[in-house]
Amino acid sequence: MAETFDLGRFALESGASLPARLVHATHGTLAPGGGNAVLVPSYYTGTHESYLPWIGPGRVLDTDRLFVVVVDMLGNGVSTSPSNAPEDVAGPRFPVVTVRDQVRAQRLLLDSLGVRRLKLVMGWSMGAMQAYEWAVSYPDHVEALLAVCGAARCSPHNSVFLEGVRAALAADPAFEGGHYTRPPVAGLEAFGRVYAGWAYSRDFFHSGTHRELGYPSVQAVLDGWAADHAALDANDLLAMIDTWQSGDVGRGRPGGYEAALRSIRARTIVMPSTTDAYFTPADSEIEASLVPGAELRLLRSDLGHIAGRPGVRDAETGVIARAARDLLAG
Amino acid sequence: MAETFDLGRFALESGASLPARLVHATHGTLAPGGGNAVLVPSYYTGTHESYLPWIGPGRVLDTDRLFVVVVDMLGNGVSTSPSNAPEDVAGPRFPVVTVRDQVRAQRLLLDSLGVRRLKLVMGWSMGAMQAYEWAVSYPDHVEALLAVCGAARCSPHNSVFLEGVRAALAADPAFEGGHYTRPPVAGLEAFGRVYAGWAYSRDFFHSGTHRELGYPSVQAVLDGWAADHAALDANDLLAMIDTWQSGDVGRGRPGGYEAALRSIRARTIVMPSTTDAYFTPADSEIEASLVPGAELRLLRSDLGHIAGRPGVRDAETGVIARAARDLLAG
Repeated sequence: MAETFDLGRFALESGASLPARLVHATHGTLAPGGGNAVLVPSYYTGTHESYLPWIGPGRVLDTDRLFVVVVDMLGNGVSTSPSNAPEDVAGPRFPVVTVRDQVRAQRLLLDSLGVRRLKLVMGWSMGAMQAYEWAVSYPDHVEALLAVCGAARCSPHNSVFLEGVRAALAADPAFEGGHYTRPPVAGLEAFGRVYAGWAYSRDFFHSGTHRELGYPSVQAVLDGWAADHAALDANDLLAMIDTWQSGDVGRGRPGGYEAALRSIRARTIVMPSTTDAYFTPADSEIEASLVPGAELRLLRSDLGHIAGRPGVRDAETGVIARAARDLLAG
Repeated sequence: MAETFDLGRFALESGASLPARLVHATHGTLAPGGGNAVLVPSYYTGTHESYLPWIGPGRVLDTDRLFVVVVDMLGNGVSTSPSNAPEDVAGPRFPVVTVRDQVRAQRLLLDSLGVRRLKLVMGWSMGAMQAYEWAVSYPDHVEALLAVCGAARCSPHNSVFLEGVRAALAADPAFEGGHYTRPPVAGLEAFGRVYAGWAYSRDFFHSGTHRELGYPSVQAVLDGWAADHAALDANDLLAMIDTWQSGDVGRGRPGGYEAALRSIRARTIVMPSTTDAYFTPADSEIEASLVPGAELRLLRSDLGHIAGRPGVRDAETGVIARAARDLLAG
């Protein structure tokens, strides 16, 4: 059951502000001492529902023992977003919400839930970006960090990939610079087709693993991604890209990126997929080397970035579950 | 000095035909016995001029000793292409020209030049695809094969990448299904921006190597690729993608891909870039293992697929030159 937390007029890093509502779902019961809270921020095009395969008795996050808070990030179409915001900040007028803004909003939400410390913050992809930002912004309040197929900043190559999908969408003049009255379907479909090439990996297609995921052919993968994205709101997609590209734990902090990662006090497991094309193992290796005591634990998979998507396949889910258990065991 | 070879009405694999003219340039002098000919087929968006950095006295292909034939592939905007073909096959009516068609056309050109055997066929990227097809189609006429950042077939992941750039272009309704009267600039620019993410590598941007190639910023890379592609013809770009996706030395041949590669009798060096995102080292390793006696020689580079582009950087050019020399030495 999703609930809504009203942030009022939330001040953003940019100086703009947003009448912000954070949708979120909680699972399990907060322990009297508050020591069993886990935060899971949503990922690109994901919602609080997307993490359900990880949540429940005996799952990655065992709700018999844990109090799990899953937050819809601003811009995702569920929390305040271009597609649902009041007129003055709707559509293309939606301000840039940084990863750091997201985390600050989530801090206020957790305060409202009576959660001061986090036993664990974890997420996949952009969820992991937010988790890193949590561990840097609130080092005394985050006991453990599990970053699955994510990074502490958006690398330049990752940003180039995102500029590609952005351009594919904007090539459709029906987008009208965000002032569309009907969905820019051709642009959204192109967005999905371009994205499909990045989401998986060479090994995924070489091994025919797309069939295992329910796609009878390579063409079906492309068509599926096109159709999935045609159903999404273009301005929401771009707002989340703005957030993604803003990600950098070091921005504006003394010592920058390296010092920020060195300041993390959470027990940390950095878990890249071995075939991820944009949150690369090479970047994860650097980040694991900078976070004191962090473990680099590879998610060996041919699924590319998708390897970490909640519930995608038992083998990958098992590796993620073990990492969460190890971190929760302390 | 480019010359034009008229193929008359050239019959294609598909059953269609094309009034085809092959533009090409020759360098050096054909030896009396004809034993010094080298063929270099053009690559995606390349022309006979693109290979000039490799050609000349003391270069990769030494014109004091070799007779070098550089061929513009059909569809590249110089040889017969959507943008310059007679009305009945112009623009979107241009038929699919397979890699095998390209090679058959080149065989006729070489016949007209008095070249029967090739001391070496080499190329970068799609040039390498054509070189593989040469070695399979004419095993008795190809003494050596150097495939730089290419493959004997278009892998499914490579094809997905190409469907992405194709979709980005077609998202611009000014493309009009190929029947445009003015260039679909937004689509062409999006095409270029998407392509930029694939052409280089994570390491390229991580190391700031874009500055070494004359791009002051990551944004300049994107803008440069957008501008470069805005100047190209959309139907030519798509015709070359059709050719690219058709590439498979095994198609329609007994035993398919593996048997075709095993049938190669040329001395072969397979040279992938270690950071190539679509003509991957993994695919090259398989292909080198199938071609009898072939050597897998890595082009260690952070330039991604661009590592093999003629003249891109001295280090890479040196490795390519050594491979060519080794193959020419026999």
